[in-house]
Amino acid sequence: MKSPSSLDFLTEALRRLPGIGPKSAQRMAYHLMQHDRDGAGLLGRALLQAVKRVHHCASCNTFTENELCEMCTDSERDATLLCVVETPADQLMIEQTLTYKGLYFVLMGRLSPLDGIGPKDIHLEKLIARATDGVVKEVVLATNFTNEGEATAHYISETLKARGIRVSRLARGVPVGGELEYVDAGTIARAMLDRRST
Amino acid sequence: MKSPSSLDFLTEALRRLPGIGPKSAQRMAYHLMQHDRDGAGLLGRALLQAVKRVHHCASCNTFTENELCEMCTDSERDATLLCVVETPADQLMIEQTLTYKGLYFVLMGRLSPLDGIGPKDIHLEKLIARATDGVVKEVVLATNFTNEGEATAHYISETLKARGIRVSRLARGVPVGGELEYVDAGTIARAMLDRRST
Repeated sequence: MKSPSSLDFLTEALRRLPGIGPKSAQRMAYHLMQHDRDGAGLLGRALLQAVKRVHHCASCNTFTENELCEMCTDSERDATLLCVVETPADQLMIEQTLTYKGLYFVLMGRLSPLDGIGPKDIHLEKLIARATDGVVKEVVLATNFTNEGEATAHYISETLKARGIRVSRLARGVPVGGELEYVDAGTIARAMLDRRST
Repeated sequence: MKSPSSLDFLTEALRRLPGIGPKSAQRMAYHLMQHDRDGAGLLGRALLQAVKRVHHCASCNTFTENELCEMCTDSERDATLLCVVETPADQLMIEQTLTYKGLYFVLMGRLSPLDGIGPKDIHLEKLIARATDGVVKEVVLATNFTNEGEATAHYISETLKARGIRVSRLARGVPVGGELEYVDAGTIARAMLDRRST
């Protein structure tokens, strides 16, 4: 017994989505064909449109449909500050804090030698060019505080400091609302070393 | 800060997939745009092609690209037997057992009054027309052994028996390899009631 080939083709294609295995792909394909053909058509058009239109901002490397993204063309932002984040989702989180008014550079990844992701894959040359444009005074590293994120921050920091650029890193410490009893020792050790006078 | 609208459109569209929430949809959209544009294009084309080409078999109601599916046009199958299943995946499971050589009718769902799914939604009229074509001698009910599946089987059984058609149901009992100590009491009770002479 064979399924119709368009359905097989769809099930195979759904497996290209991250985290979707053969069973989920089959369930999705059946669901779309049986209960949501409008949704299937909509998603199909959305995918093709996005592939055609979305590319990287020439300045900050995030996704945009124009030469420069909206934020990079916003004259209200402080162009002397450049915050380096791993993903657009991280950028969104920082924006939501309302504590940062500078510009961004989105790596679209992190250094991860085990996965074969080197400096080229995180657009380091583009970042260096951006950071040494003469306007940027300080680069704030806001990569994740995971092993890969820390390594990425360290690598970028060394590279930029060698070019005479001031580099800072988001503060590490006890989270807001954190009870010392339940915070891991590594975080407390870091908070102790980085303690600040009040 | 706004994401490019094609990306928003894609993220929204990905949420039409079953089991995909806002965070997963965003992660998928970023992944496709950053790491797998070929996959995105492939999936987009697969969706549009499937929407255009895939429809229901006129005889057994499963998905097909032709008027009749491959199995319904296979003269080697025993046309006097008709097995009723909920989904094409269930049909595939039964085929894999190699114990059934008749034809199928795929409900594409189950009766579920709480979800507003009535006899019309599971194509009951089409099934009745199919089962009373004069060739079918026995209808084997192979809906799931869940509450909805059992209710569906009961409803179909009553409807078909009223029209003088012989109806059977897959046997219930202890699974192959099952140890009585770990089998639920309901299953053992059923196996006791349905015991057979050896």
